[in-house]
Amino acid sequence: MKKVKVGVVGYGTIGQRLADGVALQKDMELIGIVDVVPTLPIRALKEKGMPYNLYISVPENLNKFEEESIPISGTLEELIQKVDIILDATNAGIGAKNKELYKKYNKKAIFQGGEKNDVADVFFHGYANYEKGLGKQFLKLTSCNTTGLIRAVDCLDRKYGIEKVAITIVARIADPGDYRRGLTDALLVHKAPNHQAVDLMTVMPHVEATGILVHAPVTLGHFITVLATPKKEISIENALTAFKEHDRIRVIRLEDGFLGNASVFNYARNLGNPRGDMYEICIWEDTIVKSGRDIMFGIHIPQESVSIPETIDGIRAAMEMETDRLKAVGETNKFLGLGKHK
Amino acid sequence: MKKVKVGVVGYGTIGQRLADGVALQKDMELIGIVDVVPTLPIRALKEKGMPYNLYISVPENLNKFEEESIPISGTLEELIQKVDIILDATNAGIGAKNKELYKKYNKKAIFQGGEKNDVADVFFHGYANYEKGLGKQFLKLTSCNTTGLIRAVDCLDRKYGIEKVAITIVARIADPGDYRRGLTDALLVHKAPNHQAVDLMTVMPHVEATGILVHAPVTLGHFITVLATPKKEISIENALTAFKEHDRIRVIRLEDGFLGNASVFNYARNLGNPRGDMYEICIWEDTIVKSGRDIMFGIHIPQESVSIPETIDGIRAAMEMETDRLKAVGETNKFLGLGKHK
Amino acid sequence: MKKVKVGVVGYGTIGQRLADGVALQKDMELIGIVDVVPTLPIRALKEKGMPYNLYISVPENLNKFEEESIPISGTLEELIQKVDIILDATNAGIGAKNKELYKKYNKKAIFQGGEKNDVADVFFHGYANYEKGLGKQFLKLTSCNTTGLIRAVDCLDRKYGIEKVAITIVARIADPGDYRRGLTDALLVHKAPNHQAVDLMTVMPHVEATGILVHAPVTLGHFITVLATPKKEISIENALTAFKEHDRIRVIRLEDGFLGNASVFNYARNLGNPRGDMYEICIWEDTIVKSGRDIMFGIHIPQESVSIPETIDGIRAAMEMETDRLKAVGETNKFLGLGKHK
Amino acid sequence: MKKVKVGVVGYGTIGQRLADGVALQKDMELIGIVDVVPTLPIRALKEKGMPYNLYISVPENLNKFEEESIPISGTLEELIQKVDIILDATNAGIGAKNKELYKKYNKKAIFQGGEKNDVADVFFHGYANYEKGLGKQFLKLTSCNTTGLIRAVDCLDRKYGIEKVAITIVARIADPGDYRRGLTDALLVHKAPNHQAVDLMTVMPHVEATGILVHAPVTLGHFITVLATPKKEISIENALTAFKEHDRIRVIRLEDGFLGNASVFNYARNLGNPRGDMYEICIWEDTIVKSGRDIMFGIHIPQESVSIPETIDGIRAAMEMETDRLKAVGETNKFLGLGKHK
Repeated sequence: MKKVKVGVVGYGTIGQRLADGVALQKDMELIGIVDVVPTLPIRALKEKGMPYNLYISVPENLNKFEEESIPISGTLEELIQKVDIILDATNAGIGAKNKELYKKYNKKAIFQGGEKNDVADVFFHGYANYEKGLGKQFLKLTSCNTTGLIRAVDCLDRKYGIEKVAITIVARIADPGDYRRGLTDALLVHKAPNHQAVDLMTVMPHVEATGILVHAPVTLGHFITVLATPKKEISIENALTAFKEHDRIRVIRLEDGFLGNASVFNYARNLGNPRGDMYEICIWEDTIVKSGRDIMFGIHIPQESVSIPETIDGIRAAMEMETDRLKAVGETNKFLGLGKHK
Repeated sequence: MKKVKVGVVGYGTIGQRLADGVALQKDMELIGIVDVVPTLPIRALKEKGMPYNLYISVPENLNKFEEESIPISGTLEELIQKVDIILDATNAGIGAKNKELYKKYNKKAIFQGGEKNDVADVFFHGYANYEKGLGKQFLKLTSCNTTGLIRAVDCLDRKYGIEKVAITIVARIADPGDYRRGLTDALLVHKAPNHQAVDLMTVMPHVEATGILVHAPVTLGHFITVLATPKKEISIENALTAFKEHDRIRVIRLEDGFLGNASVFNYARNLGNPRGDMYEICIWEDTIVKSGRDIMFGIHIPQESVSIPETIDGIRAAMEMETDRLKAVGETNKFLGLGKHK
Repeated sequence: MKKVKVGVVGYGTIGQRLADGVALQKDMELIGIVDVVPTLPIRALKEKGMPYNLYISVPENLNKFEEESIPISGTLEELIQKVDIILDATNAGIGAKNKELYKKYNKKAIFQGGEKNDVADVFFHGYANYEKGLGKQFLKLTSCNTTGLIRAVDCLDRKYGIEKVAITIVARIADPGDYRRGLTDALLVHKAPNHQAVDLMTVMPHVEATGILVHAPVTLGHFITVLATPKKEISIENALTAFKEHDRIRVIRLEDGFLGNASVFNYARNLGNPRGDMYEICIWEDTIVKSGRDIMFGIHIPQESVSIPETIDGIRAAMEMETDRLKAVGETNKFLGLGKHK
Repeated sequence: MKKVKVGVVGYGTIGQRLADGVALQKDMELIGIVDVVPTLPIRALKEKGMPYNLYISVPENLNKFEEESIPISGTLEELIQKVDIILDATNAGIGAKNKELYKKYNKKAIFQGGEKNDVADVFFHGYANYEKGLGKQFLKLTSCNTTGLIRAVDCLDRKYGIEKVAITIVARIADPGDYRRGLTDALLVHKAPNHQAVDLMTVMPHVEATGILVHAPVTLGHFITVLATPKKEISIENALTAFKEHDRIRVIRLEDGFLGNASVFNYARNLGNPRGDMYEICIWEDTIVKSGRDIMFGIHIPQESVSIPETIDGIRAAMEMETDRLKAVGETNKFLGLGKHK
């Protein structure tokens, strides 16, 4: 089979992980990555011996790369012409501008959560609405919190039907190593409903969702509580079984030592996962409780890596590599090593 | 009218504030406070010129106070004999031991949230179950989170009836200046349901409650989201009106600059409140949303001071200074200056 | 004696404290304060019953204050005409613009550390170069870290002579309640030498100074280590004595419970100081060590309030209320209650 | 050549990294690792497919491992008999107890910084006093801060002679994922001189050292400022050259994006280093300044991994695999990939 040719534009927190994720897919080929200046991730790429070809989006900056002896394979526009599909992981707003170039060369593209919804034909989630992405030119991924949240809600919804969810998000304020944002000894409250609840309804229009978002001074993962109102009552045991069977969900326990988001991060480091990343969301068994007919539980969202699998699902959908939802996500999971530990 | 004579045992975070709160009540007299060693709060008391008489609970430590030239008025046992009621704000577990002394002299006492429930005849909240405390010898206050949570739930319950609440608590991990506890770049997840939900049901047995608690690395106040299922549907406007009318609730807005718990703390400092304290819980107008028939909102809990008013209510109840619930809390509010800003 | 008439322009972290400090000086009169929009400090002022008259710097914003029923006494330009001297505590850069107005009405002004040095005739410190400020029209205060640092270095310098200092500053990244800045699980390193060392040399030109600054995710005070090379050797005991005699320095000890900056902040809250502020820098007795002939020690800088006394000294100098350095700082200290606890 | 057989006792933060480091040495064989209960690192080992053989130190706990289907190769005592040397990375105090077992079987052992100095014959540092460790039965490594500090001081000392250092340490309070310790919005000050200065003098007795230690609420690396008094004056350029030539020191720059300890951690993650670890200390070029004849600079210490190379040097010394200091550290560096990026 001919491999699908992929380019990754923007080599920051998400772009680096998309590149690594695509490079693991046996039916895809990573043609190159793109950035503007010799950032630390680009310097790390160089120190690693340039495993990926680097293209630059601002040709005037070529000398900045040459000064650091970083080899350049060409321009963004040249890369676009070589690929079938672009994963655009640039900063919010840039993707919309880049889209003009993708249209010029009639190439497909997948944008990340920071772009406005109208940048794309479909607001996409690999598990929840794979079919909507089939053959589309432009997809937009849900954001990290929304991607993880939808995984859990969709997991219960497909088995028991979910009518309504009320969520509380305790969001990390910055990624590790991020000096542009930060918060010190303060919680930052936001206007309700939060965008994640609104976005969930866009992807799962049969579910009513609302919620409150607060940022906390942590870097190692979001925490979400979900109160879900099911159509058919769900016992704690049934919820647990459903979560355990899902290849992108880990069920963890306080008594095993998973005391919070920092434990999960450190566990992923100790697993030897590159960058200490985890693709799975984690649900604490100890947090699952009933509230009348409703069910409530707590989720850990590893914000830097959680949306990588669903983005790769997006390539399969947009390129019509696979029309069956479960086969498609199964391929992504296989190449990423997901579900192995069960 | 003869003033009720009060002693405060334990002069830490809560004890200091109880002493100050009692000293403001025109119908009470603060006879003295008690501690074990010359802690920083005791040193601050001395630097302020000893506005309160100090008794010591471990007479063997007398020399430690003398070395610092801190005047001592007597022993804990001597203080007990001089007062009508003790507010016990010692560390968890000590109160249960002290109780034997209170019984010996047949004195009333009010314990704080850290003690076990069976230390007292009643688990008390000034607004929610004032009548239960009337004439009792031993009361136990709800903890800071529970005190604030019950204020808000009771406020809606009395007007509209509340059947069920599901709460998410983002708790501060330590008070400012507290070096015994702490958390750095980590959320700490707890087994559900949290004790605050369970405690709420003890005080408000007609409400079903559950919830999830997570500690965050902040010191300036807890944040709680409440999803309440009412008997009669409550509009956002009606909830807002109910909250605004309550003398121990402040309604605040993001657009006015109240961005989170740290803004509230700083506002209280700028108000000139002693220690930057606030007795009121704060509810963000911007967080009130509907979830189907349910109503959801976010509360700020100033953990160091929130339970002071309800503890003083407890004195009124235990001493039968006032049998009417609203008159009793009204007296406390008047002397604490609550409700004035409306 | 006729009181000196003072206006405070900018009612933020520093401005509020300058206003309160001036209001305590029996030989000064606070005519009014100025701000742009109804910030939280202005809302707190209103809730306190408008103890100070409020003027506005942007007349077009009048309706914003009227909507909140906040009474306005006039414009910035009107206030300037009523006062002898302005304390400008606006955001960095605004002071330089305001200076044109001060010049227009030939009024004196004192700027804070954020302004560029050339805004003023003298870079001023009450203890270190009081005489240089006598009669000048424009003074600029040293920043919070520099003000505190110079206090300690000047204290030793006047007794023993100091040739050289090498400092390490662990700076707080934000004030409590500050949401514009912040840092989460990160130290932020800066180019050496830091500006505080350079500024020290401007005020104390006979001392050679250098140092390294790093920001840490804390809000409750800076920490500075100083390695000072004296002309005459200083024993630990002599340094201790010199520090203890200084009215704007507190010597504290770990064993008394002062474990770090957070202990000091909480102690000031417990003292009943407005806003939990402390005017004194604190030096830990336990950190004073010798390094060969040099002496090393650690200082706590309460960043929000430390420069208030020296700014008030600046009024005395600029207005020539007192020509003697020690008498001048003594007046300020007396009205601020400094030195009382000794 | 026959490989030296190594066992690692204690599989926590340091033990895991020692095991990985030893496994990379072509002239050593990792026989097994030891722990007490199925901690998260042991669970991660199992999820990785048990690349190392696991022995248990408390045979009574066997069932706890069996319940988790974690295969056990034997007991601590059995492992000791199979190896030439033990790296003891147990919690402070346990090593001293284990030592009796090592003596019983006449095996060599290297203890980590938490143990008391008298547990070992030599307080060891690969670069600074390699020769002292030759053939010794028991070595104790310097702690993470001291190991990194000595690297930098020894680097200058061997070229220019160092008489005296005064250091300020801003220490991380916990490792990522560590819930046993923590600090929130507080700096924790310690009695001076700090143990790292005292320890430096034990390893480098010809240098006079003192300093002040403060803990900050960060997890991603310590920061040290060093003021060094040299015998021969050192220019900034010469210091820079010396640091750049050292295989365990990285010189980094603010302008390249290394803004602080969090940048360095994230860079190591992006490099693909296991766990996001870095063996090198980093010195910011931008922090090197002169203070009279003295030189001052700032160091980043990656606390979890910095002492791994020196511990492996210790194996070479104790087992007399190599008598030449530079050849020994060169072997360790080669197998760990150190110096490659220059």
